[in-house]
Order: sequence, then C-alpha cells, then structure tokens
Amino acid sequence: MARIVMKFGGTSVADLDRIHNVARHVKREVDAGNQVAVVVSAMAGKTNELVGWVQAMPKVAGADASFYDAREYDAIVASGEQVTSGLLAIALQSMGVDARSWHGWQIPVKTDNAHGAARIVDIDGTELIKRFEIGQVAVVAGFQGVGPDNRLATLGRGGSDTSAVAIAAAIKADRCDIYTDVDGVYTTDPRVEPKARRMKKIAFEEMLEMASLGAKVLQVRSVELAMVHKVRTFVRSSFDDPDAPGMGDPNNPPGTLICDEEEIVEQEVVTGIAYAKDEAQISLRRLADRPGVSAAIFGPLADSHINVDMIVQNISEDGSRTDMTFTVPSSDAPKALSVLDQNKSGIGYDVVQSESGLAKVSVIGIGMRSHAGVAATAFKALAEKSINIKAITTSEIKISILIDGAYAELAVRTLHSVYGLDKT
Amino acid sequence: MARIVMKFGGTSVADLDRIHNVARHVKREVDAGNQVAVVVSAMAGKTNELVGWVQAMPKVAGADASFYDAREYDAIVASGEQVTSGLLAIALQSMGVDARSWHGWQIPVKTDNAHGAARIVDIDGTELIKRFEIGQVAVVAGFQGVGPDNRLATLGRGGSDTSAVAIAAAIKADRCDIYTDVDGVYTTDPRVEPKARRMKKIAFEEMLEMASLGAKVLQVRSVELAMVHKVRTFVRSSFDDPDAPGMGDPNNPPGTLICDEEEIVEQEVVTGIAYAKDEAQISLRRLADRPGVSAAIFGPLADSHINVDMIVQNISEDGSRTDMTFTVPSSDAPKALSVLDQNKSGIGYDVVQSESGLAKVSVIGIGMRSHAGVAATAFKALAEKSINIKAITTSEIKISILIDGAYAELAVRTLHSVYGLDKT
Repeated sequence: MARIVMKFGGTSVADLDRIHNVARHVKREVDAGNQVAVVVSAMAGKTNELVGWVQAMPKVAGADASFYDAREYDAIVASGEQVTSGLLAIALQSMGVDARSWHGWQIPVKTDNAHGAARIVDIDGTELIKRFEIGQVAVVAGFQGVGPDNRLATLGRGGSDTSAVAIAAAIKADRCDIYTDVDGVYTTDPRVEPKARRMKKIAFEEMLEMASLGAKVLQVRSVELAMVHKVRTFVRSSFDDPDAPGMGDPNNPPGTLICDEEEIVEQEVVTGIAYAKDEAQISLRRLADRPGVSAAIFGPLADSHINVDMIVQNISEDGSRTDMTFTVPSSDAPKALSVLDQNKSGIGYDVVQSESGLAKVSVIGIGMRSHAGVAATAFKALAEKSINIKAITTSEIKISILIDGAYAELAVRTLHSVYGLDKT
Repeated sequence: MARIVMKFGGTSVADLDRIHNVARHVKREVDAGNQVAVVVSAMAGKTNELVGWVQAMPKVAGADASFYDAREYDAIVASGEQVTSGLLAIALQSMGVDARSWHGWQIPVKTDNAHGAARIVDIDGTELIKRFEIGQVAVVAGFQGVGPDNRLATLGRGGSDTSAVAIAAAIKADRCDIYTDVDGVYTTDPRVEPKARRMKKIAFEEMLEMASLGAKVLQVRSVELAMVHKVRTFVRSSFDDPDAPGMGDPNNPPGTLICDEEEIVEQEVVTGIAYAKDEAQISLRRLADRPGVSAAIFGPLADSHINVDMIVQNISEDGSRTDMTFTVPSSDAPKALSVLDQNKSGIGYDVVQSESGLAKVSVIGIGMRSHAGVAATAFKALAEKSINIKAITTSEIKISILIDGAYAELAVRTLHSVYGLDKT
C-alpha cells in the first residue's frame, strides 16, 4: 500500500472518453490498495478560451488598453479545473470507486496574494488524509488555491504540476505521478536526435536544468518544489493502456523517476543535452567597470519584464572598461535594446551590439562535479564540426554554449553522441 | 439614491458584446447615484453544455444507468456563472466603475443540502453593504450558494431569479430589476392575442398564478420569495438601449412592476389570461370514497416525479364510490397510467380513462375576490364559441378551465376580450 498523487494535464482530460481513460488509471491504483489523490487540469483549449475572453473584455467594453483585474482573471480561469475535477469524480463513482472533487478553497490550498501567478503558502492535508482512511479518492482541481483575500488565486500557466507536487508534500505521499503526453524524460529531444533514450531516473537538480532549458516536460516551479520536499516524481504517459502489464508496478513503472541524487546509484557524467532556439545576444562594449553597473543594466530590463538568460562578463584588461554579453528571447530583443538606449547615461557604455537567431545548447549532468574535462570534450567535438562558439557559461552541473541557430540540431546530435548518450 | 439589484439572464450575457451592454445598464444606475448589486446567469447555452457532460459521463465510464452525484453536478454547473460574473466585473472596471465578482460561497449564500435544487437558507449581506459604502458594485454569480457540507450548491434551473430576489431581501434593496428577453408581463401571450397589453403593475399573488400557469417570465420560487419579503420586482428588457430616455427613471421605468397588492390603486377584476397546452386528463372511475384514497393515488405519482396539476373530485352520490380527475403534462401520461396500474389494488378503482392533447386556460385577478360573476362570464363566453368545458378548478384569484387543445388560442382571445383586457 502506498499513498500516491496522480496528475493529468489538459490533453489527458480533453473529452469525456479521455476522462474515462484517466479514471481507469486511477482505478488501477485504487484496486492495488493505494490511497490516491488525483490532480487535474482544465480540458485542453478551455483555459485558452477563458483567457481569451478575459483579454478581449476590456476592449469590447471600450477601454483603450487591455488592462484587467488579475483577481477576476483568476475567478474566471479557475473554473476550467472545477469542471474536469467534477467530471472525473463522476466517472470514478460510475466505475464503483468512491471519489469526490475538491476545489482549491475547500482543501484549502492557501496562496499568497499574487493573483494570476500566485505561490502556494500552505496546504492543509488533514481532510484529504481523513478521506483516504475510508477509501475515498480525492479529485483535486489543479492550478488554483485561495488567497488571503478569500478570493480564488491561480498559480500561473502549467501550475497544475505545482499543485500536484505541493499536495504530494502536504499529504506525505510516497510518490507523485505526472501523467503527460510524453512517456518520460529523454536524454535530448527525440525530434532532433532519434537515438535519444528515455531515462530511468534523473536527479532533481538535473531536471531543473532540463526544465528551464527548454525540455518542456515539467514546469520549473514544480521541480523546485519536489526537490525541496524530496517528492519522488514520475513522468509517464497518460495514453498508455491503463491495464497493460507493469503499469501498476510500484517499483518499476514505465516512465522517468525524478528523485534525489542519492537514489541514483550509477550516476552518469552527462545525463542529457538541452537546447533553446530563438535566442538573441546583446553585448555592451567598453562599459565602466565599477560597482553597480550590473544592477544599472539588469534592473531596468527586469522592470520591463524581459527575461534575461545567459550573462557573460569578462575581467577587464585594465580595470576600467569591460564588455558584458547577455541573451534574451529573440522576440524581446527590440524591447531590450530600447530599454538600454533609454538608460544609456545611467549605465555608461560605449556601443551596443546585438545578434538574433542564435541557439543555446546545454550539457547537463551531476557527475560533472567530480569529473574533469567534460567541457573540453564538448568544445573539441563542436570544433570538429566547425561550429563556432559565441559565448560560454557554466554551473556546477551544466555547460551552456551559445552558437549560430542554424547549427543547433547538429550541435545537439554531436554532443549527444560524444558523451555516449546514444548507447543503450 | 436607491439600493437596487439588477439581474441578467443567459441570453443577456451570451457573448462579450452583450456583457458590455449589461455593463452599460449597470453604469447608468451607478451614475444616477444608486448602490447596485448585479446578479448574472451563465452565458446562454453554457449551462446546457455542462449539464450534458454531467449526464453523459456515467455512460461513457461504462455505467448502466446515468446516475450521477448531485454534489458533483453542482460543482461543475456552478462554474458557468463564475465566468460571467468575472467578465462583467472586468467590463465595469474598464468603463471606470468599481466592481468585483462574488461567488455564492464568498458572500456567503447559504443553502440547504438538497444539491441540484437547493433552497437558500440565509444570505449574509454585511460585506456587500460595506462595499456599497465605498461605491463598489457587487457582481454576484447567480444560481448558486454553499451547502452545510461546504460544497457548492445550485438552486435548480432558473435559479438566478431566485438568487436576485433573495439578495435583494438580504441587502434590503429598494427594488429588484429582472432584465430578460421580454419587456414585461403581458395580459396574455402576445403571440396568441396581438392585442395583449403590457401591465404597469401586477400583484405578487397574480404573478404567482401567471408564472406557474405557463407565462414563463419569472421562476415561480423567485415570485414566492419576493412576495414573502415584499421585494418590489421589475421585469424589463435587457435589449433596450441602456441610455434611452426614461430607462433610469426610478418611479416609472419601462417594464412591469410586481408588487404588493396594496401598491396597486386601481385593481382590475381580471388581470390576465394564462394557458398551458399539452395537458393530459386522467380520470379514475368508481373509486372507493374513503380516507386515504387521495394519498394512495398521488403518493406513488409524486414518487415517480410526475407533476400533477389540476385535481377535481366530486362529492359522491351515495357516499361509497366517487370519480377523481387530474391532469399531468401529456409527456408524463403513459408513465402516470403505468404507475396507476401497478397500484390498482392499493388504490381500489374500477376503470381508468385518459385523454391527451388538452389545454388549460386560466383567468387570473385579485379583484375576483370581491366581484361575483367572474366565472359565469367566462363560461358564457366560451359557450357562445361552442367550446366545451371538460373540467373546472378555482382558487380565490383564479379560474382554470380544461378544454380541447385545438380551442386553446380561441379561448384565450375570447376571455381576453370579454374581461376588457384588449382596451388600453
């Protein structure tokens, strides 16, 4: 017997047939004697429809800008999960499984007041656990909670993953199964490298890098939360036959386990290759090398909601002037340049240079910490393919390399091969 | 300055343009210095879509019957009003009107535990009134409340009218304006009698008879509630130009006022003619005339959810055997006959006779109480048109006559004319 959280995304509950399929997955776990909480998203497309109405309403009502109250956004958009949680409860009941739906405010899932992108502050798992004792499945509307103002709050797009992990932590679940439209986490994107393999296990830290670097399997915040609370999280497919052999295997279910690195006995040096396209590079030349210059650059960019990714600054030759390079999504580049121009006197740079259409390729692996030469291997392999490296940043478990976007796929395949990830 | 409740139904909030139109009606009242609570239904068609999913889910999940948990029904269906209340709040804010949405559980609107057709037990108007003081409009999701189990409860179809009147009572509103797709209450159905006139005023008791007899302007329960709490209720059109002259006239707005009879100075003897088609008559012949026989008949019919309307029983000639006639909707007649057959020995009747395709025409007016000869006028007028009367029931303020359905329209026009309702 185990206590598990099962999470299903929008494509998994897109219509009544798929909701029935989800109910079969849940029934399998219940029949195996497990205590189950299910977290569901809204039907695919439903959240977009609701968000579309919210965004269009101000202009239809004659307003110049499309400003809207985030509290009303939350009250409207949270309704999507309400519908699927109720329908799944009915499906389970129809299959003889005791179940009831829970909205965020009923549990309650308490959040902060940052409507539209709220953070979970506290979840009271008492009532859910009490229902487990009588064999009842909790069907929880994901993506939502209730703020200190007693109004609905949503966690931001993709927030149902975060709901699931947070609920798993609150009820001290043995694991959290994230059912999605892929069957696990791969060593790289299989569309780029068909030899990519599904991992059995990946450490939280590695998954964080994979998630934030564009492997869009799990929301970054949910991985952070899982790491902090040590929630063993499985990524698996909701489209598998719920009753196929091995689907309910508690020790070795199909999918990828995201877990503490201590649980991974044979640690690979490099675990995966991630990439992000459509990056733009911006370089500020002959910048005053004085305290506060970084704040003068990145403060105004943050205020303009521009998401800066890589930042590279070299030690200046003479201690007076330096160069600073950073990347932003290509779509944000014109805005970033305009912000820099407005703040030119405050920052104090000579010229600005920029280039769009770049790609960032990253090599990730916890084993890197104890192995020398990982970076050198990458640089050599890329050089052999005549791929020019524009910038490099590294962390303890990651090397990120900025290259011309045209070489992105080639670089991914080259690195995937050179670290032996092709081999089974 | 007045405190008013404004209620808008599903067709009035069917899309963003119509929601904007509703917001214009609200803004007009706010600009006139009124304190306003708005109650909204779900977008037209939305409730039906949600109910359709709820009803289909059990069979999709493999259940034989389409039984479903009414608490889940409520959790799902209440989401429709949640969306429109949020959108209307955004529309109002975009027009410079301070507004916020309220879900049933937030106010709270407390109901009993009869999920799917709950009754309002208590509404705490304190918080709404506090917001009025700072000029904020309350946009309330209609049709819903929260049960003693802390779960969403809906009031049954058409329940938004009831929400509106109950909220008007709770906040001691000066009046409750029900905006709908008709522009008031007519002396009879204008599709049958083009000379039908819109009434300026109608007494609660009369409206109750009109509503329950098929003039589908207002839900019966909302009229009952308005009568008990003496809530002055206006029925008016949501499709009028919100800024046309006279629309905001507090003393004489366009529409029909439903009010206490004391407010109606010149009481007409007959106020309106209502009708209901597709009635079936069922007669039980030579029934044992003993205590409990009515219960033996109508108990099993009620258990089978058959809505019995007229009931006519004559005093028996010899004190031992009697006849009983009652009407049901034609669509329920086969089921009713089958229920009677199953309970034949318990009831103790000789034969059963039935006829479908009948119509009930009703003459309504509080003035009847103090005027003799109203019924005789009806009978004479119908006889002159050779319309045969099959059964008659009367109350203090109503005469209902059962006739062949083919004569329904002729009977309505005849009675409308004979009581002088054609004249302006």
